[in-house]
Amino acid sequence: MKIGNQHYQTIWLDESDPSVIKVIDQQKLPFFLEIKELRSVEDVYNAIDRMTVRGAPLIGAAAAFGIYLAALEISVNTNPLSHLHNAARYLVSCRPTAVNLAWAVDFVMQKLNDEMPVEELAEVSRKAAIEICDLEKENCRQIGIHGLPLIEEISRNKKGETVNILTHCNAGWLACIDYGTATAPIYLAHDKGIKVHVWVDETRPRNQGARLTAYELGEHGVPYTIIPDNSGGHLMQHCMVDLVIVGSDRTTKNGDSANKTGTYLKALAAHDNNIPFYSAVPSTSIDFNISDGLKEITIEERDPEEVLKIEGLLHGRIEQVRLCPENARAANFGFDVTPARLITGIITEKGICNAGVDSIKKMFPDKFN
Amino acid sequence: MKIGNQHYQTIWLDESDPSVIKVIDQQKLPFFLEIKELRSVEDVYNAIDRMTVRGAPLIGAAAAFGIYLAALEISVNTNPLSHLHNAARYLVSCRPTAVNLAWAVDFVMQKLNDEMPVEELAEVSRKAAIEICDLEKENCRQIGIHGLPLIEEISRNKKGETVNILTHCNAGWLACIDYGTATAPIYLAHDKGIKVHVWVDETRPRNQGARLTAYELGEHGVPYTIIPDNSGGHLMQHCMVDLVIVGSDRTTKNGDSANKTGTYLKALAAHDNNIPFYSAVPSTSIDFNISDGLKEITIEERDPEEVLKIEGLLHGRIEQVRLCPENARAANFGFDVTPARLITGIITEKGICNAGVDSIKKMFPDKFN
Repeated sequence: MKIGNQHYQTIWLDESDPSVIKVIDQQKLPFFLEIKELRSVEDVYNAIDRMTVRGAPLIGAAAAFGIYLAALEISVNTNPLSHLHNAARYLVSCRPTAVNLAWAVDFVMQKLNDEMPVEELAEVSRKAAIEICDLEKENCRQIGIHGLPLIEEISRNKKGETVNILTHCNAGWLACIDYGTATAPIYLAHDKGIKVHVWVDETRPRNQGARLTAYELGEHGVPYTIIPDNSGGHLMQHCMVDLVIVGSDRTTKNGDSANKTGTYLKALAAHDNNIPFYSAVPSTSIDFNISDGLKEITIEERDPEEVLKIEGLLHGRIEQVRLCPENARAANFGFDVTPARLITGIITEKGICNAGVDSIKKMFPDKFN
Repeated sequence: MKIGNQHYQTIWLDESDPSVIKVIDQQKLPFFLEIKELRSVEDVYNAIDRMTVRGAPLIGAAAAFGIYLAALEISVNTNPLSHLHNAARYLVSCRPTAVNLAWAVDFVMQKLNDEMPVEELAEVSRKAAIEICDLEKENCRQIGIHGLPLIEEISRNKKGETVNILTHCNAGWLACIDYGTATAPIYLAHDKGIKVHVWVDETRPRNQGARLTAYELGEHGVPYTIIPDNSGGHLMQHCMVDLVIVGSDRTTKNGDSANKTGTYLKALAAHDNNIPFYSAVPSTSIDFNISDGLKEITIEERDPEEVLKIEGLLHGRIEQVRLCPENARAANFGFDVTPARLITGIITEKGICNAGVDSIKKMFPDKFN
């Protein structure tokens, strides 16, 4: 999508030096637009770990490029494929909740074998990473196409009045390669001239809503209002929300959905107020091996410092301020699981299905073998 | 309660100069403990408006002292009582949601009449303000006594293992005169040697949890952990919360309860996970004139800047950093209403009642005439 008037993706191979992966540094947004170069598998690991790149589809794509960069690093004294297997394990260990990370690494590794010379390993992994980027872009575009009618219908029912959509965290194009998952239908609706307005949950502790979703919606010209994560319930009680769309880091084959911490609370409020609640989920974020999200999805615990301190702009610099008493303790669970019973539907690249195993199986029969 | 080893209240009349009201400056906590002097009704208005003092019982007490300070300011050319009526209206206009503000001002004004000379107006209003402080202290102490058995029972059921209590915002002694509402049973349990641990919602946008609740629990020695407002649902899904206790700024005679924004979301999660959810409410926070909280309680909208920026400590100074893109819009609804159906019980100074008109009427029959 656009920043200013220029089209960007979140990640790309440098045209002039194909040993360099370029990414938008999301730790600097919305204050500074900076491009960061990743030159090694460690660079990729650190970029994912420190959330220079984040979002389920994007960390998958970044990890795929990580395998490619690892292939460029193979030294003469190592077994090439075991070197890459080590790189794969290393990358997958970085963040446990999003399924795309493991999926993307596996997607690349499946294409490699012992017979390939080092140059071919690099060439094949590079192509596989680009294939993942193209696939995720197309997935998001299709999610937009399938989700658009939901917004169009509300707009018709409201006789063209503004459709108010609430979203949590950033499941926008910055979390993906382009378009976004939760935002794809919103961008399509906006571009088609349908009046939309987005309530952006700020999404503590890392404020991906206030920082990233606000930034990308603003750059694209979509009207939005930032709210504390606490506000959604009140807005829903007072008919100020028509629709909730969120992303997912891992959705089970039964439709339970792990997403940024706090999503479950919004799903409860939507349910209590009869407001449709949709998860926008490319099939790459569905874990077809598990059923019970509460029992089977590992929830990442992150550094408590992310809760105790916060980053913002002061006198033109990004600074970190402490929010609480010295020596305070904090807990930082990165995600929560929204049970399928609270999800109205799942918007996938193949269409919208119910959050239940039968409907998901009908949509993706080949994944159930 | 204690700060360090010294006993404090949140507000008191200066012993050496009875024209001065002293308060703990809650805008500086937890970073600096500073005492602020209020010398005029404008000082009191500003202290309430800027949240130097906050919390339903405390703003009531402060406003009562505001009438007293107004009485000290009566000039020879004004009608004394109409001067005080103006001061009363001015003070009540400051924050619309908490019922204690109007209640306390009314409590003082009822004791004044046209026949009183100026000195008597001052004397009577001073005594009335002190009476309110004593009443609110005793209310909180009684809430502690009536709430304690809830914690004792859970402790017994858990065979003495730690009782995990979640609270939202600050309904601690800093919101009152002493003891607190939601915290009173917790302090009593802790002092009695029952193992308790408090999950402290940070409570964006103003972070009263991370700043004030964490501070007062820490100073008193009660174990606590700060969490983002988004985390409570996950904790409840995984049996890490035994009990929720929150305060209230205005509870209707049917039991609907307005409290800091986000309380409703926690009540939904508690309900969804069969966790007892209690409101700790002195009768001074019950509005016996209204029934339907969602329709009848005015929800204060505060400055969006409180969402767009945040205050914290940097290099030993309190600084404000911007959290979002320049020119971003935000909405800042200060409170939400938790419907009575989600409230397990209301802990009052007279005992625990159900969140329903019959039970509340039985507890406070004289208020229903």
